[in-house]
Amino acid sequence: MSEAAAPRSHRTRSWWGWGWADAHPDDAECIAMGALVPGTLARPLPLPRIADLRIGAPAVTPPAALAHLVTADPAVRASHAMGKAFRDVARALRGRPGRIPDLVAHPRSDRHVADLLEWAGDRAVAVVPYGGGSSVVGGVEYRGAAHRAVLSLDLTAMDAVLELDPAGRSALVQAGILGPALEDRLRPHGLTLRHFPQSFEFSTLGGWLATRAGGHYATGRTRIDDFAQSLRVVTPAATGTSWRLPSSGAGPSPDRLFLGSEGALGIITQAWMRLQERPHHKASAAVAFARFEDALEAVRAVAQSDLSPANCRLLDAGEAALSGASRDGSAVLVLGFESATAPVGDRLAHAVDLARAHGGTADGGAGSGGSGGSGGPSDAAVGAWRSAFLRMPYLRDGLARMGAVVETFETAATWDRIPALIDEIRSEVGAAARKATGHPALVNCRLTHVYPDGAAPYFTVIAGGRDGDEDAVWDELKAVAEDVLHRHRATITHHHAVGRDHRRSYDRQRPEPFALALRAAKSALDPHGVLNPGVLLDA
Amino acid sequence: MSEAAAPRSHRTRSWWGWGWADAHPDDAECIAMGALVPGTLARPLPLPRIADLRIGAPAVTPPAALAHLVTADPAVRASHAMGKAFRDVARALRGRPGRIPDLVAHPRSDRHVADLLEWAGDRAVAVVPYGGGSSVVGGVEYRGAAHRAVLSLDLTAMDAVLELDPAGRSALVQAGILGPALEDRLRPHGLTLRHFPQSFEFSTLGGWLATRAGGHYATGRTRIDDFAQSLRVVTPAATGTSWRLPSSGAGPSPDRLFLGSEGALGIITQAWMRLQERPHHKASAAVAFARFEDALEAVRAVAQSDLSPANCRLLDAGEAALSGASRDGSAVLVLGFESATAPVGDRLAHAVDLARAHGGTADGGAGSGGSGGSGGPSDAAVGAWRSAFLRMPYLRDGLARMGAVVETFETAATWDRIPALIDEIRSEVGAAARKATGHPALVNCRLTHVYPDGAAPYFTVIAGGRDGDEDAVWDELKAVAEDVLHRHRATITHHHAVGRDHRRSYDRQRPEPFALALRAAKSALDPHGVLNPGVLLDA
Repeated sequence: MSEAAAPRSHRTRSWWGWGWADAHPDDAECIAMGALVPGTLARPLPLPRIADLRIGAPAVTPPAALAHLVTADPAVRASHAMGKAFRDVARALRGRPGRIPDLVAHPRSDRHVADLLEWAGDRAVAVVPYGGGSSVVGGVEYRGAAHRAVLSLDLTAMDAVLELDPAGRSALVQAGILGPALEDRLRPHGLTLRHFPQSFEFSTLGGWLATRAGGHYATGRTRIDDFAQSLRVVTPAATGTSWRLPSSGAGPSPDRLFLGSEGALGIITQAWMRLQERPHHKASAAVAFARFEDALEAVRAVAQSDLSPANCRLLDAGEAALSGASRDGSAVLVLGFESATAPVGDRLAHAVDLARAHGGTADGGAGSGGSGGSGGPSDAAVGAWRSAFLRMPYLRDGLARMGAVVETFETAATWDRIPALIDEIRSEVGAAARKATGHPALVNCRLTHVYPDGAAPYFTVIAGGRDGDEDAVWDELKAVAEDVLHRHRATITHHHAVGRDHRRSYDRQRPEPFALALRAAKSALDPHGVLNPGVLLDA
Repeated sequence: MSEAAAPRSHRTRSWWGWGWADAHPDDAECIAMGALVPGTLARPLPLPRIADLRIGAPAVTPPAALAHLVTADPAVRASHAMGKAFRDVARALRGRPGRIPDLVAHPRSDRHVADLLEWAGDRAVAVVPYGGGSSVVGGVEYRGAAHRAVLSLDLTAMDAVLELDPAGRSALVQAGILGPALEDRLRPHGLTLRHFPQSFEFSTLGGWLATRAGGHYATGRTRIDDFAQSLRVVTPAATGTSWRLPSSGAGPSPDRLFLGSEGALGIITQAWMRLQERPHHKASAAVAFARFEDALEAVRAVAQSDLSPANCRLLDAGEAALSGASRDGSAVLVLGFESATAPVGDRLAHAVDLARAHGGTADGGAGSGGSGGSGGPSDAAVGAWRSAFLRMPYLRDGLARMGAVVETFETAATWDRIPALIDEIRSEVGAAARKATGHPALVNCRLTHVYPDGAAPYFTVIAGGRDGDEDAVWDELKAVAEDVLHRHRATITHHHAVGRDHRRSYDRQRPEPFALALRAAKSALDPHGVLNPGVLLDA
C-alpha cells in the first residue's frame, strides 16, 4: 500500500452511516442544518450504538475447514446488516436496522469463495455479497425468511492488483479492492482507471462491476461496463473467466450478463480492467442559465457534438444554490475537459460557445491549457460543486439525525421525455412530501450523465420527517417518484442499481423475454437459490 | 423508397455467390485472375444453375392461415440454402450446396413471426432466420437431421422506418431493412446510422444486431451494439420490447443478451437505433511504413490517444499491394477523420505526427478541412483501398470459379499478442496451404478495428485449390488458423459471428458460467429447440 493510502487504515468506518465515523457533522452542525428544513427535530437523534442492538447467536456454524474465514463478531455483523441509503440510516437511528447476518466471511481466494458457496448451498444459507457496503438500494440487506441463516460475503480481503500490462494499458485486479487503493497502485505506472463515483472511497471494483456503476465521465463511456476487459466469476455451478479481449463478436457478450447481476448470478472475484494514461491537459468552466429549459437545450447540443467533455453536469437553481455554485437563481452547467493527448482548450471553448448560443453566460473565461481551470469565477463554481458532492452524504446523515428525510435517486430517459419528467417529479414528489409531512420539501435536479439520445437526471429530496417514521415517509415519496418514472418510461436506475428497493419498478421495466432468460440463468447457476436472494428476482 | 434506391430493385441477386448477378467478373477476368494464383484451373467452372439441383417437395405444408406468407418455389428455396462464405460458393460451384430449406416465409409483422414460430415449434420444424443472407460462418444454413423440415424465415418484407425522433436522433426501424434502403430513408433528415460493413448492400439491420456486426468506425463505437437503443424480440415463449433508454443500470443489459444471439434465442423484429448527424468535415491520409512492426506501434499510439479516427486501417505489404494502396512493399496505414461538429484537420495532423514518430512516411499532406481529402498521392491510396474493399467479394467468387481457395477471417487480441499472432498465422496457414495444395499461398493481414487495449487483425488467404475439393482445403487451413488463435487466446470472431462454422472454437472460448446461462436461456425461450438449431449451442 502506498504512503498516501496508509492513514486511511487508522480511521473507523461508521457502522450506521456514510463513510468515516470521524467525518460526521457534530451536534451543533446538525442543529444548524436542521434549522433550514421545516418540520425537523429540535435536537439531533443520538448516535446509534451496536451495544443497544439485540444480536442473537448465529443460526448456523461453519464447518471447521472454513471457520478461519468466518466471524460471528456482533460489531462486524451489525456493520454488514445494511447499505447506506437514507432508509438504512434512518432505521439505524431509530433502532430498527435490517436483518443482521448470522456470519460474515472474508475469503482470500476463489477457492474460499467456491467452498463457502458450496457449504451455503448445502445448508440453505443465503449469501449476500458485500464490497464497500455503499449500496443505496437494499443490495446488501437480506430480507425474507426462506433461508436458514444469512452469510455476508465480504470480498475486501481480496484486494490485490495481480498483474499489469502497460502496453495494453490493463490490469488484473481483485474485486474487493476499494477505489483509493486501486488508484494508489496504478499511480506509479502513470495509469488510472478513472472511475470516481461519489462512493469512490467506500466502494469496491467488484461492487462497481456487479451494479454497472456510473463513473467519472459524464459523456461517452459513462459506466464501468466499458472498462471491463475480462471477468472471473465464481458461481455455485461453475467458475470461469472470459478471455482478455479488446472486443469480440463471438455470441452475446459473456461479461455483459454478469455486469449488473448484483450478486444474484455469481461472485465476480477479479477482472482485467482497461486503464488510461493520466490526463495532463485539463480545463473547465461553468456556464450560468437564467432558464433551466435553455440549459437543457445547451446540454443536448453539447451531448450531440463530438466534443466529449469529461464533465457535463447541469445543476438546476436549487442544486446550484445548495452546492454554492450559484446564489442568484441560475442553473449552472459545469463543463470539464481532460486529455492525455492534446490540450483541451479548443474543445472547452467550442462547448462554451454552444452553451452561449443557447442563452448561457460563462462568467469565467473558457480557460485552456495544461494545469486545470481558468482561474476565474467559473473555477469557484466548479470547485464548490466538487466539494459539496463529496461532503453531501455526510450532511445527509446529519440531517437524518435531525429527523429529516434526505435522499437522492436517479434515472435516465430520452430527450423528448426529459422536460416533463423533471417537472412532474418536482411537482408530484413535492406535493406528496407536503401531504406526508405537512411541510414544503426541496426537490432539486441535476443532470449527471448526458448522451446524444438522452440524459440521466439525478434528484435530491429534502423534507421534514414524521417523528420516528422517516423511512416510511421516504418510501411513500419514492413510490410517487417511481410512478412518474414509469409513466415516462424512464429507467428505475441509471447507476445506483436495482437491489431490493427497486424491484417493483424493475419488474415492470424488464422485457419478458429477458425476464425468462434471467430466471433460467439464475436456476442454472444458483440451483439452491442462495445467491443474494430477492435481488433482481424473487427468492 | 427513394429514387436513389429504385434502380437496385431491377437487379438480380446471385443465388450462389456474392451480391448482384450482373457484377460478377466475366470468364476472361476470371482467367486473368486465376493466372496469378499457382495451382488454379485453366478455365473457370461454369456458373451453377438452380435447374441442375435436386430440390424435392417440402416435407411439411404450412397451415392455411400462414400459407400466404410461405413459398416452396425452388429458386427461392435454393437462394436461401446457404450464406456467402467461400465454402458456400465453392460448394455451389461443385453442385453440392447445403441443405435446401423446405419452405421460405416472408412475414410482414411480429404477429406473423410469432405464428410461424408457434407452428414450427408444434411441428418440430427448424426455423433459420434470414436477413440479407450474407453470413460467412454458416449462420443461415441448416445442418443436422433432428427436425422434420427447415423453414427459412426471411425478414426482408419487414423493412420500414416506423418512427423518427430528430431531437433524440433515433429511429425505430424494422429488422429486415437492407443497408442502402435505411440510409436512403434517413438521408432527407440529415441523419445516418453510419454502419457500413463490407456487406452493407446485402445485409440487414436485424442481421447486424443478431451478429454484433462491426461497422464503419475503426475506433470507439466499432460495433452495432452501441447504437442499439431498444430491441423488440419475438421468441417462442414470449415477445417483448426493451425501453428506449440512453443508458440504464437496471440489472444486466437485456439487449446485450440478444445482441449476438444469432437467431438462437429469438427473432429481433425491430429496433430503435441511435443515429448521427451526417459529418460535414472529413479528412484522410495514408502513411507508409517500411517495417510492419513499426506500423503496429504507430497504430497502437493512435488507438491509445483520444483522437478517435473513424478510419484507422493498417494494411500489410501484401494487402497494400493487392488493393493498389502501395506497390513498393510498404505497409500502409489509412487514417480518416470525420465530424459534424468541427473541422478535423488538427486531429488528422496529430495522428499523422504520431505515425511519423514511429517511422511512417506520409506522402500526401495531412490535408484538413471540409470536403474530404488532401488531393495528394495519399488520396489515391485511400481511394484504391476503398474500391478494392467493395469489389473484393466479387473477385473472390471469380477466383473460386478458377478453383482457387480464397477466404478471409478476423479475430481480435490484446496488443501483447498481436505481433506473434500475425506471424504465426502467416507461417502456419501458409505452410498448411502448401502442404494441402502443393503451391505457395498468399496470407495477407490488415488491422480493421483498433482499441486502446488491442486490435482486430483480418486475414486474407489466397491459394491454389485441390480440384473439386476446394471447400475441404479451406476447412483444413481454417482449422490450423483456429488453433493459432486459440493458442493466443484471440477471439474466434471479431465481427463475422459464430454461426455453425466457428462452433468448435467458440465452445473452447466461452466461459463455463456463461455457457450454462446461455443453455438455460435457450431452453426457456425456445423450449422446442427450433430456433436456428446448431448456432451457438448444440441442437
